[in-house]
Amino acid sequence: MAGDPLVGLAERLQGLCLGRGVSVALAESCTGGLVADAITDVAGSSGYFLGGVVSYSNESKERLLEVPAAVLAAHGAVSAQVARAMAEGARARFAADVGGAVTGIAGPDGGSPAKPVGLVYVAVADANGLEVRRLQSSGDRAANKEASARALLELLLERAEAAGTRGAAAASR
Amino acid sequence: MAGDPLVGLAERLQGLCLGRGVSVALAESCTGGLVADAITDVAGSSGYFLGGVVSYSNESKERLLEVPAAVLAAHGAVSAQVARAMAEGARARFAADVGGAVTGIAGPDGGSPAKPVGLVYVAVADANGLEVRRLQSSGDRAANKEASARALLELLLERAEAAGTRGAAAASR
Repeated sequence: MAGDPLVGLAERLQGLCLGRGVSVALAESCTGGLVADAITDVAGSSGYFLGGVVSYSNESKERLLEVPAAVLAAHGAVSAQVARAMAEGARARFAADVGGAVTGIAGPDGGSPAKPVGLVYVAVADANGLEVRRLQSSGDRAANKEASARALLELLLERAEAAGTRGAAAASR
Repeated sequence: MAGDPLVGLAERLQGLCLGRGVSVALAESCTGGLVADAITDVAGSSGYFLGGVVSYSNESKERLLEVPAAVLAAHGAVSAQVARAMAEGARARFAADVGGAVTGIAGPDGGSPAKPVGLVYVAVADANGLEVRRLQSSGDRAANKEASARALLELLLERAEAAGTRGAAAASR
């Protein structure tokens, strides 16, 4: 079971998405399924959560999420460009309203001077476009997974809240 | 982070798979990513774990895992037949040596007299064929997810150990 802070974020996300009839799908690399696990710890999550891909290899990013091989080769799996493509891929493959993605280096291995352990990109693709964020976590593997999962859930929540505000503004005009 | 008992099983699975050069992919329904989360809590898991699909909708079982719509319609998502198809689908889509799958009813909703909450099927597809097991868990949602995840990891471990024994016997002939 995912930790309580993540499940709390997932509960808020579920309330927003069910209230607005919005479906969500995920593409997770460094979090390895932790975001989906937190989301599905909440009873009733099948009402908006369609599923996700845990893409722990470059090949699976290409095969299951349609991340272009050229983008992977040019920027590397841990990059803003790949995070965006993963979010778009999740949204398209699951036919979801919102696609969320996270890619990073959980450690302890796999880091480099240019891309140190703890470097993470999260991205969300929805009807209002794409947003990507970079963060640098500094914990151990478990802490980096947790911080990455939290960052994606927070981005999903902020986008859902902003879309709701826009929707309310449009409805009141 | 997944609970310690699951991570302990994942550590043993990693040792076996890395030692034998065997790759693993998953298809998770009721566990919602918990098995992948446990596997990726272990440093170095990217050496054998290719990824997984969290298929929380029938449509995603068809689209991403190539579970035939007719099998879903005839037997329901929580069935031995769908568990087998999910395991085969994970193995094929990720081009993995071993595909593991779990489908069940985590609860508290979604149960019926014929398929009560806590009913779970786990399946593994590998070079030696297919194996599926049925279990009936009796806890709350979190406990059912945990029991389901443990059952899949245990089946993966047993198959990996048996394959190793067969491999050793063949090598000693």
